[in-house]
Amino acid sequence: MSDIRSLAMAARDAASDVAVLSTDAKRALMMDMAASLERHAGEILAANAQDMQQAAAKGVQGAMLDRLRLDEARVATIAQALREVANLPDPVGVVTRRETRPNGIGIERVRIPLGVVAMIYEARPNVTADAAALCLMAGNAVILRGGSEAIHSNTAIAAALHDALSAHGLPAAAVTLLTDLRREAMVELLQLADIIDLAIPRGGEGLIRFVTEHARVPVIKHYKGVCHLYVDRAADLELALGLLVDGKTSRPGVCNALETLLVHREVAASFLPLAAKALQERGVELRGDETVCALAPGAKPATEDDYAAEFLDLILAIRVVDDLEQAIAHIRRHGSDHTEVIATRDEATAQRFVQALRSAVVMVNASSRFSDGGELGLGAEIGISTTRLHAYGPMGAESLTVERFVVRGEGQVRHPSSLSANLSAPVLPDASA
Amino acid sequence: MSDIRSLAMAARDAASDVAVLSTDAKRALMMDMAASLERHAGEILAANAQDMQQAAAKGVQGAMLDRLRLDEARVATIAQALREVANLPDPVGVVTRRETRPNGIGIERVRIPLGVVAMIYEARPNVTADAAALCLMAGNAVILRGGSEAIHSNTAIAAALHDALSAHGLPAAAVTLLTDLRREAMVELLQLADIIDLAIPRGGEGLIRFVTEHARVPVIKHYKGVCHLYVDRAADLELALGLLVDGKTSRPGVCNALETLLVHREVAASFLPLAAKALQERGVELRGDETVCALAPGAKPATEDDYAAEFLDLILAIRVVDDLEQAIAHIRRHGSDHTEVIATRDEATAQRFVQALRSAVVMVNASSRFSDGGELGLGAEIGISTTRLHAYGPMGAESLTVERFVVRGEGQVRHPSSLSANLSAPVLPDASA
Repeated sequence: MSDIRSLAMAARDAASDVAVLSTDAKRALMMDMAASLERHAGEILAANAQDMQQAAAKGVQGAMLDRLRLDEARVATIAQALREVANLPDPVGVVTRRETRPNGIGIERVRIPLGVVAMIYEARPNVTADAAALCLMAGNAVILRGGSEAIHSNTAIAAALHDALSAHGLPAAAVTLLTDLRREAMVELLQLADIIDLAIPRGGEGLIRFVTEHARVPVIKHYKGVCHLYVDRAADLELALGLLVDGKTSRPGVCNALETLLVHREVAASFLPLAAKALQERGVELRGDETVCALAPGAKPATEDDYAAEFLDLILAIRVVDDLEQAIAHIRRHGSDHTEVIATRDEATAQRFVQALRSAVVMVNASSRFSDGGELGLGAEIGISTTRLHAYGPMGAESLTVERFVVRGEGQVRHPSSLSANLSAPVLPDASA
Repeated sequence: MSDIRSLAMAARDAASDVAVLSTDAKRALMMDMAASLERHAGEILAANAQDMQQAAAKGVQGAMLDRLRLDEARVATIAQALREVANLPDPVGVVTRRETRPNGIGIERVRIPLGVVAMIYEARPNVTADAAALCLMAGNAVILRGGSEAIHSNTAIAAALHDALSAHGLPAAAVTLLTDLRREAMVELLQLADIIDLAIPRGGEGLIRFVTEHARVPVIKHYKGVCHLYVDRAADLELALGLLVDGKTSRPGVCNALETLLVHREVAASFLPLAAKALQERGVELRGDETVCALAPGAKPATEDDYAAEFLDLILAIRVVDDLEQAIAHIRRHGSDHTEVIATRDEATAQRFVQALRSAVVMVNASSRFSDGGELGLGAEIGISTTRLHAYGPMGAESLTVERFVVRGEGQVRHPSSLSANLSAPVLPDASA
């Protein structure tokens, strides 16, 4: 058996142990994992220094290097995140539906863990602890495949987590760190459809495409967030301006930042000059159609590609639309099913916008930046899905479980006539007819 | 653009129209589809006669040929099934959770359709109507790829459904029948990850493996049902015998039929002779371990393969186990995650059995034959999933939807400090810091 397969099978065995842990046991484990991280902060920072040195030697710098860096405060933040996971509601064992059928059998839908989750990610070492904690809290084992640039940090973090697992009598394989970072090893992992229940890639589009193309196991992913704000003719323009500035400028590098503004023609002349001024004062480059360029001094002409772009930067594509339907058609054509916002005071317009779009998150008069597990009340977030299956939008611990059926009866059978009523009664040979 | 791709894109466009239909509109459509099938029964039966002739000419016979056959009564049954779908609760628009966050934004989880569902199936022409109805009721478009042996029947049934769609102003592409039956066409369809939201293969293991191996779109499937009955030492043996006879003999050719019986050693001597007698009188061949062969006259020795077999026939594998844990270990090792049953009067034993097994359906003192969408209260069934993602176990209309987020605010933003409060107030250049 290959190393990858035997490592995955060990994770699957460990998953059985994690699945039956009580909520209290999982919470105590989370707290001890947090304490162990803090206790091993010295080793973790030393390992991180090695990663930083190697990255710097390879010429990595700026934001990329910063994402890799750990210090005492960041380790404390990671530990704190685990303590927050300990306080999440336990999704396992939750009964989502109860019914008694006419024949008397009682049916429950009950949440159980998925089993083994494979996280494939890049750079940030905090994912090692965050993902492990969320997977364990939902009763799963996890296989972590981080990037080579963070291998020492990830190894040190995993070792600290293993200490806590061991103190709770749990196998280290419940949190398995893949240290064979060859692409072939990842591909082999992604083909183990009989062992791995879900793969979640987090990182650049290249990584996500690679995972999707090579996986035989189910994959939940999102490629990009091309989030739209549509300012309706019935919008409160001041409110709309707030959503626009927050959505575009509060953190432009994240997937729930706004990338395209659509403005109803009737309010374009009043809204666009103000919007342009507010955005340009915050350093945003504007790219628009002819009307936009006429109304917003300094705006450049937009190309067709700009309307499908995830800029992740202080750039905004703008289009003036004739009506709600044109806005909907634009979003359907160019959107990424992530998050769309409408600013309007007209309830029927809002309702049509919500119904006509099938994006994971649709907002009425609220900022796209709320499209986030924490903000939407899920607690910690394991990822965001734009795949319309299983989970759609921000995914919390509950997304790492599935509902199954538990049925309780008192001997009910489907075809009573095929039975003899009594063990001692003679069974007629033709009773099976 | 290829024919397959343009056909799929037409289905996606049609999905937008279906998604926004009201419950009443969908119910009226179902009723008209049923009526149209009955009105076109003549054409459908003539087409079916062609299929039957061709199949007979190819040497198809017995159960295979019977599965293909339609008559007036079967067409009426298909129409009746559509009328039953019309009475199902509409899953679309159902709000599964409501929450107001501390900042005042209101969050709803709301069910929306998946989009485009591809059904890949064999033989039975009723699937053409059943699958179309369930997909439409859940607000989806469907692409149907049936077997070549039923192509005339499927075409006639689809034409009848198109009549009803047209009468409701809906595009025929909402129910698209793939008539290009080359394997390459199916493969191309299964690769359209940007258009098809879910593929559901129904048929033999070969078809399901082919779909799984060639799909880039998500697939929900089940390979086989190796269902177990464990008769505990605390079982009511009369009750257990009823579950055994019903599970094995009431319809041996279906996936929720029992394939393996596990008996606690302490009750083996009292249960097995009676069980053997009842089963053998109904023509069941028994294959067991040494103890079984000693206690059940006529039982043959079982091979290791027998314990993983989906016989779909009047054959039963039997093993005597030392205790509950050995039964659980056996099922974990040999099971297919479909349906497992325990017969016991001991609540703690039942609880341990339910918790330790992660099969889609676990039953206490009820027949495995209830593992079916209708019996479990889902109404019609689109398939059974043994993939622990999205849907697990029998899948009804709700499994053809997904929950998304709808957020309503009054202008809330994530970083209020980055805004100026007022449109007319001057915006400070450093406000973005």
